[in-house]
Amino acid sequence: MRIAVVAPSCPLKREAADAVQAIVTRRGDCELVIHPQCFLTDGHFAGPDEARLAALREVMTDATVDAVWFARGGYGSNRIAEAALVDLPAAAAAKTYMGYSDAGFLLSGFYNNGLSVAWGPMPQDVLREGGEAAVNRALDWLVSRDPSTLEPALDGPAMAFNLTVLSNLLGTALEPDFTGIDLLVEEVSEQLYRIDRTMFHVTANPNVRRVARLRLGRVGNIPENDPDFGRDECEIVEEWCHRSGITFAGRADIGHDASNRVVPFLRRND
Amino acid sequence: MRIAVVAPSCPLKREAADAVQAIVTRRGDCELVIHPQCFLTDGHFAGPDEARLAALREVMTDATVDAVWFARGGYGSNRIAEAALVDLPAAAAAKTYMGYSDAGFLLSGFYNNGLSVAWGPMPQDVLREGGEAAVNRALDWLVSRDPSTLEPALDGPAMAFNLTVLSNLLGTALEPDFTGIDLLVEEVSEQLYRIDRTMFHVTANPNVRRVARLRLGRVGNIPENDPDFGRDECEIVEEWCHRSGITFAGRADIGHDASNRVVPFLRRND
Repeated sequence: MRIAVVAPSCPLKREAADAVQAIVTRRGDCELVIHPQCFLTDGHFAGPDEARLAALREVMTDATVDAVWFARGGYGSNRIAEAALVDLPAAAAAKTYMGYSDAGFLLSGFYNNGLSVAWGPMPQDVLREGGEAAVNRALDWLVSRDPSTLEPALDGPAMAFNLTVLSNLLGTALEPDFTGIDLLVEEVSEQLYRIDRTMFHVTANPNVRRVARLRLGRVGNIPENDPDFGRDECEIVEEWCHRSGITFAGRADIGHDASNRVVPFLRRND
Repeated sequence: MRIAVVAPSCPLKREAADAVQAIVTRRGDCELVIHPQCFLTDGHFAGPDEARLAALREVMTDATVDAVWFARGGYGSNRIAEAALVDLPAAAAAKTYMGYSDAGFLLSGFYNNGLSVAWGPMPQDVLREGGEAAVNRALDWLVSRDPSTLEPALDGPAMAFNLTVLSNLLGTALEPDFTGIDLLVEEVSEQLYRIDRTMFHVTANPNVRRVARLRLGRVGNIPENDPDFGRDECEIVEEWCHRSGITFAGRADIGHDASNRVVPFLRRND
């Protein structure tokens, strides 16, 4: 199992790369190839669009690579997602792609093009409290499809998104067909009024309204709302589901934290 | 000229109400009726949805009211915008509606339903440095359609939106037809990476791509991007216009500040 790491958004920290390589060495069941592009910087990004796209296309088209693991989130994968999908070679369809947060732009676009994608922990997560377990969870899924890594209540086709990323891909070429799937959403570092506004936007979308159910992952690091918003994130999500006729099916075990579980984007016919 | 003030989003400050009433008294060319709902509070909002909606409907349906002036932005008008438009009486179509920022949800929905709406300063702006001029500019337009209040480069049908509000109304029932209009956008208190992401979202939209031209108002109070983003707001907007085939037509004289000009939402046949 040969896993390539590229950074389509922001740069990977060297100490994260070293820590993940040490975990892989201890495991002995896979090989990790961290692309040097992961350490480039160009303003906000891990190198210019051209460099991030070239590294991504390189590992996508490399037939010796079994899985592509996105190094971390941040922001920027949307800037190259459509270009990454042009004239896909067969080798691109023979591997798995994993990440979350900003990588959701890629997961969605790749899923639309028939590739195998999964929401799950990323290399930079090793720096979180409990991050080694998160990295091993991702590797356990990539290497052996260990079912204990999966979000525990998955039941049929599902997708997972950061709520803000989901909002920003609606209406773009990256938007997937949500018909009949369970939609899991999570959020981080957004004030409650923003979450309310984003839920208004997302649940108004006719495509999103075709989901089977919506479930709410963790909402972490919420900046203070001044004044107090008056309801919490679960009440907000439940209300917008109710208003839009979407079935709210409770909480989900995903989030911007070390406990984040794996959600493969299964199709209705998978 | 009888102007009613309601607060569909957040509460109006008492000192702003008093200062605007004093301006109106000095002018002597209009009457200002500040609805008591403006001072309600319910968590983030100027009263519960029901109270904000009831006050808005009350002034919309009051045939003695010539104009409805939204007290301020913040967040929350999207929560009542669709309900405000149900079974509109003739009196609602015989008046003008003015505001900006979060009020863009209402301006858009009202415009869709044939009402006369304009982007322009709001009562709470009186508390800004230079705010008296902003309030007089709004009143000069509401009372006498003074052309000196208008955004100076308007040429044909136009709409103005806060960029984040625009992003959040795409795909909802409030989305207007952008075909052939000049779209003016401004932003406040958003990091550059968020502006880049929102421009990706907005300019990917097929409806937005039918605008005649896009112009950029002021982008104020930008929180630090860590690391430095690498390009400024004008470069960001120009790039996404270029990528999406939208004609970028330079800057616009609107923004979250006392210099904010008036932009009536004209139709292509007006």
